[in-house]
Amino acid sequence: MEYVKQRRSIRKYQERDIDQNLLNELLETASRASTMGNLQLYSVVVTRDAEIKKALAPAHFNQPMVFDAPVLLTFCADFHRTSVWCENRKAVPGYDNFLSFLNASIDTLLFAQTFCTLAEEKGLGLCYLGTTIYNPDLIIDTLKLPKLVMPVTTVTLGYPAENPPQTDRLPVEAFVHEEAYHDYTAMDIDRLYAYKEALPENKHFVEINKKETLAQIFTDIRYTKKDNEFMSETYLASMKKQGFLK
Amino acid sequence: MEYVKQRRSIRKYQERDIDQNLLNELLETASRASTMGNLQLYSVVVTRDAEIKKALAPAHFNQPMVFDAPVLLTFCADFHRTSVWCENRKAVPGYDNFLSFLNASIDTLLFAQTFCTLAEEKGLGLCYLGTTIYNPDLIIDTLKLPKLVMPVTTVTLGYPAENPPQTDRLPVEAFVHEEAYHDYTAMDIDRLYAYKEALPENKHFVEINKKETLAQIFTDIRYTKKDNEFMSETYLASMKKQGFLK
Repeated sequence: MEYVKQRRSIRKYQERDIDQNLLNELLETASRASTMGNLQLYSVVVTRDAEIKKALAPAHFNQPMVFDAPVLLTFCADFHRTSVWCENRKAVPGYDNFLSFLNASIDTLLFAQTFCTLAEEKGLGLCYLGTTIYNPDLIIDTLKLPKLVMPVTTVTLGYPAENPPQTDRLPVEAFVHEEAYHDYTAMDIDRLYAYKEALPENKHFVEINKKETLAQIFTDIRYTKKDNEFMSETYLASMKKQGFLK
Repeated sequence: MEYVKQRRSIRKYQERDIDQNLLNELLETASRASTMGNLQLYSVVVTRDAEIKKALAPAHFNQPMVFDAPVLLTFCADFHRTSVWCENRKAVPGYDNFLSFLNASIDTLLFAQTFCTLAEEKGLGLCYLGTTIYNPDLIIDTLKLPKLVMPVTTVTLGYPAENPPQTDRLPVEAFVHEEAYHDYTAMDIDRLYAYKEALPENKHFVEINKKETLAQIFTDIRYTKKDNEFMSETYLASMKKQGFLK
């Protein structure tokens, strides 16, 4: 519990490599995570090769950690392996649909997060790359993902070469609802976001970007409607190509 | 690490309640999980009330653990709270789209799984209910989820009243790929699934269901194409109603 309380994402890594046996032990133990029907609807592609990192980097906006981390893990929703098993066993798989994508994505993320918790406990540092779902086709092509396999998230992994301060979190009452969802009044929002909005680094960020509020940093710069709508179409098209959507 | 190695899903619970402070501490600590832009795109609805459990139960095929667990946690992808914050801060949110649903779902599952790992370390037992995405509308209505909130998974939680054997897992080579995805030959499938297929309980399951292979149990009984296609449409329609899809 203490490891999780103290955790922070790590974006700078030592040159030190990660032992293959340690990595395999962590991946094996993580596979103890809950999984639908015990089918383990995921795959993970391990990238150590510099050339492949270079090929993947544009999908992640060329963030330096993609090059610098000794290991990249691309976690994929995978109904391909299960479908091949079925086809080899006189069973007709019916997993080329959206629900199966969701089931596999859930399995994948429970596995990925269990892996990350274990890795941090072993002294490794990591960072999730949300960019994985922005440009899936480049990842699919580079890692040669077959139909019914979709990249869901990527983790950069290595021994920490930084010790950044912990970032803030909303108070627990902001995301926990007793018995039913309780909608937020303007006063609730003021109270729940007060600490975040008052942080010097956030105030500075608003100022240098010439914005009025912190929320505008998100809506106007970081996660815009236009980008979101474009990438929604990209991901849905990719899902169709991979066979998860009609 | 040892807790994860030994873990198993728990479906039978003692009558003992879960202390509110313990639950809140676990939820608070779990919020240390990685999250997109530190927005924490999730909410969790805590159900202790017997009437609400009864109302939710049909969505989970009336599995006894829904009634018997002292606590049910419905983990939801939530862009509503963030959008309300934006609207209250002269920012125009653009999160009514599929990509935002995916981003929020990823946040939700990393949070949920961190919670589960911590809860098991504290001696609690739990089981994920994959049924959450089968019949989302009943859950949305019962828990009064507003637009831009979708149920993603549910966890039943309590002190264990059973100690079931651990279930099998595929060997690590079945789901780990070095540098690129390596497709499976018929021989690979035979080797990787041999242990699972030889388990007495699985052989028994095939026999009593009058099937030829274990894979047919999945394709013909547990997760059929027809059900998957029907529930795909149900979930997509629900996403439209909740504003995550045009």
